[in-house]
Amino acid sequence: MSHIKNVAIVGGTHGNEVTGPYLLRRWQLRPEEIKRPSFSTRLCLGNPKAFKENRRFVDEDLNRCFAGDSLQSRDSPSYEAARASVLNYEIGPKGSSKYDFVIDIHTSTSNCGAMLVLTGDDVFSIRLAAYIQGKIPETRIHYIPSGDGDPPFLGSLVSRSLGVETGPIPQGVLRYDIFELTRRVVLSALDFAHNHNSGLQLDLPKELTVFKMHQRLKYPMEEGYLAAMIHESLQGRDYEPLNPGDPLFRCLDGSLLSYEGARIVYPVFINEAAYYREQLAMVLTTKETLSVPGADAADA
Amino acid sequence: MSHIKNVAIVGGTHGNEVTGPYLLRRWQLRPEEIKRPSFSTRLCLGNPKAFKENRRFVDEDLNRCFAGDSLQSRDSPSYEAARASVLNYEIGPKGSSKYDFVIDIHTSTSNCGAMLVLTGDDVFSIRLAAYIQGKIPETRIHYIPSGDGDPPFLGSLVSRSLGVETGPIPQGVLRYDIFELTRRVVLSALDFAHNHNSGLQLDLPKELTVFKMHQRLKYPMEEGYLAAMIHESLQGRDYEPLNPGDPLFRCLDGSLLSYEGARIVYPVFINEAAYYREQLAMVLTTKETLSVPGADAADA
Repeated sequence: MSHIKNVAIVGGTHGNEVTGPYLLRRWQLRPEEIKRPSFSTRLCLGNPKAFKENRRFVDEDLNRCFAGDSLQSRDSPSYEAARASVLNYEIGPKGSSKYDFVIDIHTSTSNCGAMLVLTGDDVFSIRLAAYIQGKIPETRIHYIPSGDGDPPFLGSLVSRSLGVETGPIPQGVLRYDIFELTRRVVLSALDFAHNHNSGLQLDLPKELTVFKMHQRLKYPMEEGYLAAMIHESLQGRDYEPLNPGDPLFRCLDGSLLSYEGARIVYPVFINEAAYYREQLAMVLTTKETLSVPGADAADA
Repeated sequence: MSHIKNVAIVGGTHGNEVTGPYLLRRWQLRPEEIKRPSFSTRLCLGNPKAFKENRRFVDEDLNRCFAGDSLQSRDSPSYEAARASVLNYEIGPKGSSKYDFVIDIHTSTSNCGAMLVLTGDDVFSIRLAAYIQGKIPETRIHYIPSGDGDPPFLGSLVSRSLGVETGPIPQGVLRYDIFELTRRVVLSALDFAHNHNSGLQLDLPKELTVFKMHQRLKYPMEEGYLAAMIHESLQGRDYEPLNPGDPLFRCLDGSLLSYEGARIVYPVFINEAAYYREQLAMVLTTKETLSVPGADAADA
């Protein structure tokens, strides 16, 4: 498998998810924590202006600015489009990046716990997720196959990426428990990358359970307002089965709406604050099993 | 005691505390819930523009714009100063208001539960708090004596006011449990106002425990960053005793800072997101006991 030479850790891609920027600060104070013998690691504040203003973004969501077309466009860019170009220069360029692996740190108001966001099903990604889950068993894997398209996410700048989402935590807030959990996940990812370079034989499970992106589920709306809230029996129940007929929403007038899908799904990002703007209540996933390839499998 | 004729319920004084605005929406759909025979009730969205933009405020904190001097000033007002003038017209004017009682709904990212914010120690306020706590025992009273000054808070527009803070809940998020808790507190306040008008004999306790504002406690700072987070043993422990020598902050490098005050205090608003801007970590209170006056006591 190809060697990893340069790793980038990005925090504050969304400016009000402050755990990432403060982890960068931690590692500026304690750089030995992220040093590994076989590669160099760079710290990178994703959206400095949004972090300073404690907002998700200034003009548009930075984590949707990394499609190739967007990166090529230069006509009066938004703050985030300009910032995406800088990041493309610093850790890209997309398609032939100087960096081999990027870890992008996020938080969520949903009860996502320690969520690894995988967009690739390559050997490295699957083994990475299996390794971290072995070290931190409460980790859950959210699998969003990017397919053949041109994904707009920061992670797509570099051939190997890991998104880390931790929660629940309000926007603009630091909590030691979430800070520590995120720190452990990132350090574990660095350990894996070093083991990968070293060719160390790892004792990984044969299979990995993933929550595969299935459908975005919106709030019912009425006169520009949400007409309902997450039902109290569903609040905080990320990764748990939602059966056809289960309560889904509690309407403002007290009445109830049930899930009308035909199959069991597993909601994640339930009641994520940043998704209200898109009237998105949760993301429905299916629970699937991926084979964990051996270390000698071809690296995708 | 003087009769209450007009009650105003204000939600969204802070635009990203969305429980209030959605309670207003609820009561537009179900107006019978807030009807009481002895007074009329008006619903009032505090900061419509900030609510629409899901921000605490647009230019400045609306809940600091109600000092008499500010209300007199007319020179190129901020959005919130202009909005304060409108509210002063609609439910004021301050000092001789058309309204007799205002309930101002807020939420917090701290574990404040159901907090009643009292700024007056008049007969009505103390009996109101005792009544609500009797109906909703988890209620806690945060007592901020306004003294002889000219308070800048919305509640100061009207002679009798109640601030309601519920949490923990992230900014920009609706949760059914917090929505319901807040709804119950407000309806209970309306019940009390009606009982007050009716001269009904109420079975109130003789004493009320309050958490009296003592001191604002700031984060240690370093190079423009917080140097520490709330210590994990203190997170979520609002209203519980903090003893001299107890852990207070966990520094970014992992070290610990202890509380160095001379007396036992009771922190509230621990890790409130809106206070980061002022580098405020929590508010320290002292636990005190107020006598609950009888219904026949003079109304202040």
